[in-house]
Amino acid sequence: MRQIVVFSGSAHQALATRICDVLDVELSPAPVTRFSNDCLQVQLQANCRQRDVYVVQPLVPPTQEHLMELLLMLDAARGASAAQVTAVIPHFAYARSDKKDASRISIGGRLVADLLVAAGADRVLTMTLHAPQVHGFFSVPVDHLTAIGELAAHFRGHDLSDTVVVSPDFGNAKTATQFARLLGVDVAAGNKRRLADDRVVVDSIVGDVTGKRAIILDDEIATGGSIVQLLESLAQQGCTGASVATTHGLFTGPAVERLRGHPAIAEIVTTDTVPPPPVDWPELSVRSVAPLFAEAIARIHAGESVSSLFDGVDPTHGPPQPKLPFGARD
Amino acid sequence: MRQIVVFSGSAHQALATRICDVLDVELSPAPVTRFSNDCLQVQLQANCRQRDVYVVQPLVPPTQEHLMELLLMLDAARGASAAQVTAVIPHFAYARSDKKDASRISIGGRLVADLLVAAGADRVLTMTLHAPQVHGFFSVPVDHLTAIGELAAHFRGHDLSDTVVVSPDFGNAKTATQFARLLGVDVAAGNKRRLADDRVVVDSIVGDVTGKRAIILDDEIATGGSIVQLLESLAQQGCTGASVATTHGLFTGPAVERLRGHPAIAEIVTTDTVPPPPVDWPELSVRSVAPLFAEAIARIHAGESVSSLFDGVDPTHGPPQPKLPFGARD
Amino acid sequence: MRQIVVFSGSAHQALATRICDVLDVELSPAPVTRFSNDCLQVQLQANCRQRDVYVVQPLVPPTQEHLMELLLMLDAARGASAAQVTAVIPHFAYARSDKKDASRISIGGRLVADLLVAAGADRVLTMTLHAPQVHGFFSVPVDHLTAIGELAAHFRGHDLSDTVVVSPDFGNAKTATQFARLLGVDVAAGNKRRLADDRVVVDSIVGDVTGKRAIILDDEIATGGSIVQLLESLAQQGCTGASVATTHGLFTGPAVERLRGHPAIAEIVTTDTVPPPPVDWPELSVRSVAPLFAEAIARIHAGESVSSLFDGVDPTHGPPQPKLPFGARD
Amino acid sequence: MRQIVVFSGSAHQALATRICDVLDVELSPAPVTRFSNDCLQVQLQANCRQRDVYVVQPLVPPTQEHLMELLLMLDAARGASAAQVTAVIPHFAYARSDKKDASRISIGGRLVADLLVAAGADRVLTMTLHAPQVHGFFSVPVDHLTAIGELAAHFRGHDLSDTVVVSPDFGNAKTATQFARLLGVDVAAGNKRRLADDRVVVDSIVGDVTGKRAIILDDEIATGGSIVQLLESLAQQGCTGASVATTHGLFTGPAVERLRGHPAIAEIVTTDTVPPPPVDWPELSVRSVAPLFAEAIARIHAGESVSSLFDGVDPTHGPPQPKLPFGARD
Amino acid sequence: MRQIVVFSGSAHQALATRICDVLDVELSPAPVTRFSNDCLQVQLQANCRQRDVYVVQPLVPPTQEHLMELLLMLDAARGASAAQVTAVIPHFAYARSDKKDASRISIGGRLVADLLVAAGADRVLTMTLHAPQVHGFFSVPVDHLTAIGELAAHFRGHDLSDTVVVSPDFGNAKTATQFARLLGVDVAAGNKRRLADDRVVVDSIVGDVTGKRAIILDDEIATGGSIVQLLESLAQQGCTGASVATTHGLFTGPAVERLRGHPAIAEIVTTDTVPPPPVDWPELSVRSVAPLFAEAIARIHAGESVSSLFDGVDPTHGPPQPKLPFGARD
Amino acid sequence: MRQIVVFSGSAHQALATRICDVLDVELSPAPVTRFSNDCLQVQLQANCRQRDVYVVQPLVPPTQEHLMELLLMLDAARGASAAQVTAVIPHFAYARSDKKDASRISIGGRLVADLLVAAGADRVLTMTLHAPQVHGFFSVPVDHLTAIGELAAHFRGHDLSDTVVVSPDFGNAKTATQFARLLGVDVAAGNKRRLADDRVVVDSIVGDVTGKRAIILDDEIATGGSIVQLLESLAQQGCTGASVATTHGLFTGPAVERLRGHPAIAEIVTTDTVPPPPVDWPELSVRSVAPLFAEAIARIHAGESVSSLFDGVDPTHGPPQPKLPFGARD
Repeated sequence: MRQIVVFSGSAHQALATRICDVLDVELSPAPVTRFSNDCLQVQLQANCRQRDVYVVQPLVPPTQEHLMELLLMLDAARGASAAQVTAVIPHFAYARSDKKDASRISIGGRLVADLLVAAGADRVLTMTLHAPQVHGFFSVPVDHLTAIGELAAHFRGHDLSDTVVVSPDFGNAKTATQFARLLGVDVAAGNKRRLADDRVVVDSIVGDVTGKRAIILDDEIATGGSIVQLLESLAQQGCTGASVATTHGLFTGPAVERLRGHPAIAEIVTTDTVPPPPVDWPELSVRSVAPLFAEAIARIHAGESVSSLFDGVDPTHGPPQPKLPFGARD
Repeated sequence: MRQIVVFSGSAHQALATRICDVLDVELSPAPVTRFSNDCLQVQLQANCRQRDVYVVQPLVPPTQEHLMELLLMLDAARGASAAQVTAVIPHFAYARSDKKDASRISIGGRLVADLLVAAGADRVLTMTLHAPQVHGFFSVPVDHLTAIGELAAHFRGHDLSDTVVVSPDFGNAKTATQFARLLGVDVAAGNKRRLADDRVVVDSIVGDVTGKRAIILDDEIATGGSIVQLLESLAQQGCTGASVATTHGLFTGPAVERLRGHPAIAEIVTTDTVPPPPVDWPELSVRSVAPLFAEAIARIHAGESVSSLFDGVDPTHGPPQPKLPFGARD
Repeated sequence: MRQIVVFSGSAHQALATRICDVLDVELSPAPVTRFSNDCLQVQLQANCRQRDVYVVQPLVPPTQEHLMELLLMLDAARGASAAQVTAVIPHFAYARSDKKDASRISIGGRLVADLLVAAGADRVLTMTLHAPQVHGFFSVPVDHLTAIGELAAHFRGHDLSDTVVVSPDFGNAKTATQFARLLGVDVAAGNKRRLADDRVVVDSIVGDVTGKRAIILDDEIATGGSIVQLLESLAQQGCTGASVATTHGLFTGPAVERLRGHPAIAEIVTTDTVPPPPVDWPELSVRSVAPLFAEAIARIHAGESVSSLFDGVDPTHGPPQPKLPFGARD
Repeated sequence: MRQIVVFSGSAHQALATRICDVLDVELSPAPVTRFSNDCLQVQLQANCRQRDVYVVQPLVPPTQEHLMELLLMLDAARGASAAQVTAVIPHFAYARSDKKDASRISIGGRLVADLLVAAGADRVLTMTLHAPQVHGFFSVPVDHLTAIGELAAHFRGHDLSDTVVVSPDFGNAKTATQFARLLGVDVAAGNKRRLADDRVVVDSIVGDVTGKRAIILDDEIATGGSIVQLLESLAQQGCTGASVATTHGLFTGPAVERLRGHPAIAEIVTTDTVPPPPVDWPELSVRSVAPLFAEAIARIHAGESVSSLFDGVDPTHGPPQPKLPFGARD
Repeated sequence: MRQIVVFSGSAHQALATRICDVLDVELSPAPVTRFSNDCLQVQLQANCRQRDVYVVQPLVPPTQEHLMELLLMLDAARGASAAQVTAVIPHFAYARSDKKDASRISIGGRLVADLLVAAGADRVLTMTLHAPQVHGFFSVPVDHLTAIGELAAHFRGHDLSDTVVVSPDFGNAKTATQFARLLGVDVAAGNKRRLADDRVVVDSIVGDVTGKRAIILDDEIATGGSIVQLLESLAQQGCTGASVATTHGLFTGPAVERLRGHPAIAEIVTTDTVPPPPVDWPELSVRSVAPLFAEAIARIHAGESVSSLFDGVDPTHGPPQPKLPFGARD
Repeated sequence: MRQIVVFSGSAHQALATRICDVLDVELSPAPVTRFSNDCLQVQLQANCRQRDVYVVQPLVPPTQEHLMELLLMLDAARGASAAQVTAVIPHFAYARSDKKDASRISIGGRLVADLLVAAGADRVLTMTLHAPQVHGFFSVPVDHLTAIGELAAHFRGHDLSDTVVVSPDFGNAKTATQFARLLGVDVAAGNKRRLADDRVVVDSIVGDVTGKRAIILDDEIATGGSIVQLLESLAQQGCTGASVATTHGLFTGPAVERLRGHPAIAEIVTTDTVPPPPVDWPELSVRSVAPLFAEAIARIHAGESVSSLFDGVDPTHGPPQPKLPFGARD
């Protein structure tokens, strides 16, 4: 069997190290050089020849720097005769550019998918794409992991009577429904409208939240503006308090200021697909998805099924129950 | 300026003829031959050299036959030295295969997008893709039209007091919201769960429908199972009656039997992206989108903006109001 | 060594099962779903990761359905991280569209070859292409098997004195000559002219058939029109009777009616590259090529020569006798 | 309308000049440099920007030199921002490598087709490919001209009573049949077998040639070995004399010695797709196809049909009579 | 003739505006949006359909941001059905990554060339690539301009007796030789060795500089370290003073501090391929290359030769004197 | 582990045999056939299926013949299902066409790189490219070996006091500097100007050569014109004698006449990347690089680092000393 070599760009070395620890391989050095004209260069300092190379790099700020590092590393691995090059992108930020919501813009998610392939990616391993359709932007195989099992595990011990899962908008409501079923509770959704940059209005809540405690589920939290808006609406509807669960806890800009200590938030749980905010924040729990990534890499390497990792968790990733011929759509 | 040549496969010659009538060009013949081993051949019987060729073919049943006709025609046009080949696909049925909802299936929408490009499509002109992300499956430019302006026009003269637009599920709710705004009414959505083939359960309705008349909006109606389920739920919630609006009125299998004469349905309005059911059906109105397609072709040909066709109709297709730098997302 | 996984579309499960039996592997399930808008979906229900995947599907009627199934399965296998995907197409029907015999048509054989590669085929395994040049339509390696050894085996025990192999037309005459040499008999050919659909005239027979028994060899029999015409010409020239041998016995449309019980036909021998006609037909012998396909798959898998399978049978597939530098062309 | 620029490699400047004369454009200089390490360089000494560039180069000996010149010129034209680059290859010699007649050889015709596209050819204009299937080796549009109308014109004034067209082998027999119909005479074919390099045996002649004069039609004559063999067989069958017609009269190696003054050959007619042999040869007539190439270029440029150039000449190149839906195959 | 549309990313709007002024077209708006997860989006706010689109963006710091903007704009233009998309990259910074000077690094220049093509660039217009071979990294046509005529113009009026052009190292010496010939003076070169980051040693000067004034020519000045080193060596060799000429005056990091007011530097002349340093610097002259870029765009658009722009300036860009067949290499 | 199969074209069978001897594998036969129309065919006469195939062919005169042989062999290996195909090109002659030094020429090095990939090369193994940037012309991995260690070994035992390494021009000066450091001597360079074909003028020598013995280092010697010119200049500067070292000793045209017995040349040392001149030449030493190529192939096969082969020899090929983050450029 071919050897595994794992490299990390500078975006999130801690996660790469955790994945390597679970895999029991060493993280190979890949120092980044910035030239005086601001061009980057990355040297892969371990032999790649006929190895299966994994490059770990979530697309977190500074996003363009990290994307370029990743592209340079993929190209270097290909040029160094790797047997197979896998881009491990725990947070694929450009997935949010998934449609033409204005004229003459790029669908950035598709563009970046094409750039990754042009640079040499033979496969992509990622988690919780903003929309499941983004999977179809890639012309190479994608292993698409989900964190909702991990997030649900956090709430398993809690008292979940009078609890409702709330999706900030309709677009995310399907995943919220799955999450709610894992916890055995009901689901509701906000009817969000965007007015301008940083100005969102939640018109109403569809579903019954009165007298209940909410678990707000969102795939990504950046500035936290939507969450704050949603909390207000929930309060108006008689909701008695909220926890927040998210896969990609970016907490950029005013997010920490907005959310830390917010009276309506009991706790926030997120994962380490991205580095945690470098602040003291008692209500924030970070659960590691490194074991999930390590297990996926091990299965990819051993030729075992990755989808069965999520049996019973998320039908988007696991074998359907029942199988397709008995469960087709209308 | 280069000449336009329009061909039609056998899927929907009537629509192609209507488009040509508006464009004031003749539909060029493209007879289909079926060989005794069931292989197809299509001959383009008009000179394509240095012309802009448009091949009109919605992917309606028998879908595979029509897809293969389309692929053969695109390849023939390319081989005949067309300057540019546009696949005009008013109903892109494979858009419904837009994600991996089971292990080891093809994302059919992406596959068919790639097949069209492999066969020679330089551009695609289509309407109301099942999800806006499907746009990103194509590696060639896509002009994506919307019919909601045309459908809304149908209801403009009606009394819309106490009316609510209802989306059968959350996935479609964003478009329903746009449609409701065009009509100046409220919106609600069903919380649909699929049990098995042909068995759908609408758990609940989010949004207030009591004492109101519903206009159900769906992108595509095939067997009509979801609509019937939704009507039941609406009735339980005190809804007083319904109209149905859909872009792609396929009405396959038991659809006509289920929907024609249904006591809760006042009327059904659809478009001619697909051929209408060959039955007498007084409550069914079919509005032609041929003028929209013809106008789009004329603008493509003249080098004019297609998106401005939909100013004020659908922000997904028109220039954003306000422009992007003032309306970015959270 | 990597594992083999074999799937079959719905075109010819019996052949796939026979191939698997010889290989001593199980045929993995791949159920086909037809959605209510007539789109297809196929789920590969066995792990493909790092496996060598073989998808068996002859292009028999309904040809377009079976082609689309095949494309969906190839794409699914690629997306499921198969190490190598081989399209096993015992009958590649579109090979008959191998040239531009009319203006502005697609060369369907080349188009379908490109579609297969676009969908993910890494290699093709096929039998008796209508013209050997069709091999060159593929941009991936093709292993091209021949059935003439198998067909000749059928006649080995027969009394072949006063027997002549007859090709229906000149295009097929080279293979007929090889077949005749395998049997140690002479060869003749019809001078066929096509007037219109289903109307063929055999002007004359070149070569001596008077007082002889003919073995007519054709690569594919569809409606059987050419065979019936040829039998008339042979009778006029004093031929005393005929057997018929063909690789791909499709027998579509009026074929069974025309050929079963035809007084001039002593027997018909074909192979199972396609399903046999579901009728009682005592004169029809079907010889299985499953052992040939299984052996080819085993050799592909073991890295052994496939061409040597046909040593002494068919110089198009085996090493030349003598080797090329001593046997070049004029 | 864009301007035409025509260049010629060093293979056949006389033909390129004749084509330019008919087109009334000047042949632009493209001097070839051979460096001291034997690498070639070609400079296109006319502006190509936004022009339609035509590079004329038949693949005649030294074939590899001429092929490389052609590839360098196509690449230079592309790099010089030509609007469209057409490779005009009057004799595509590698078309004879059209199938795998031995194990582990390249199908040279497909390989060279791919090289031409890799170098920048947007379209190919050629004449009389060795097999019509070679058209399908190209992934760009091919305009495939025929010379049989031109060759037939040579014999129009002759007394053609008791004349028969003879094809040296079955592979070429279809074209011979067309040629015979143009002249209103019968057709026969040799049953050729190849023993070794330069050693061909014509076993027999199929068709009646006794007491007749033959017009032997072959697509290409290289060393003339097959022709001499065929003449012997014809004489044995009582044929009274022969003319020879060929599109590509290469006359390499011993061809001139063998054919010039051969007692059985009344005359040889060929075309200028390749340079004529530099010898005095009274029986040799060379008819120019420069007008056909010039007319094809003019039509390509003006966006007019090229196939209609051959109406009534060759159904492979002209619109079918009758059209496809009324003349499909069995 | 098609219309020109010019957009600019945020790297150097002043240059884009100057180019538009010379061309007498308006710079079309293309506002950049940064989302809260640090992803970028650019909207092209002018119709691109069937237009020739030019996107102006030098790769200056922050280089990765500007590269991503450029890629997004190219993709948006392609998706908006532009007839042709040209990336105008006055300073292609990644050209300095032009070889594997260490194991397992990417050749960044080739990678970025491939990314630009993947994003939709049909052509590249650039100036003074670090090495002329970088031209060959692109698979699309490149128009490669030179500034040495513009830089030489600056020194034309000066007293150039006792002046010598000095190249900092051998790699750049060929261009320095051309520059010296334009000015009619001698040339010398430093023998530079790099010890570590920011530590360069100029071992010696080859060529006579004693008692002369130097004009140092370098393609790009970043931190200015090499220049300072070279000035020391020149002083040791008896050089009496220096001017500095460079195409790409980046002046990053300590450059201004090092070079402004340096006693040995009489003046520095650069161009506006990159924005000038935002400081008061009396010895710095910036000459605009906007007229050269505008003229090149006008010629590309009009289908006129771009190379003739540089007749007599730089044989790398103009027609050779004499033409190639009379001036080939050894 | 997969098996290695090595083939050789007709360019340099002796080298291929030597490489195989070191590897202890047999050279597999690959006879070349030339057809009567001058087309080539090569048959690989050993099973390639799932093997790692290496095709050895330097591009020496007749260069076009040898290039076409190589392309045919690569394509044959790919079509024969090789696991991986490596083009071993010890002398890549077209690397000298590495830039646009005239308008509207092809950058031949890039073109040939693309042709090799189009024909099926998965990897390239080569030595001493004319410019290191040519590495970036390939879209597949390149292992680029250097001979300067081998050439330096030749001089190790010599008395090197008063010796200077001389580069014929600036372009080659960097490698000359490395070579000089390996020998512990100084370096100088000629300032060469090309007047016309075969007419070169060496204006001057930069660096001190008076009273010294020169070792002239050039990557390739073709006609030897530059060397002779350089020797004259060296003599004028008081140089007392010279040796010549070159990787690719082609010695074409008048080279032997010019260089053999030249009074100023003590000895010439070259390698066997190309066949040696077939003459008696006592001063010529040929050192074999077969061990280097064999070791590289063995390491490629075993998945070991190739760059470490050159530790301490050539920083372009070995790991940098110190590593990149500590040795970045200015």
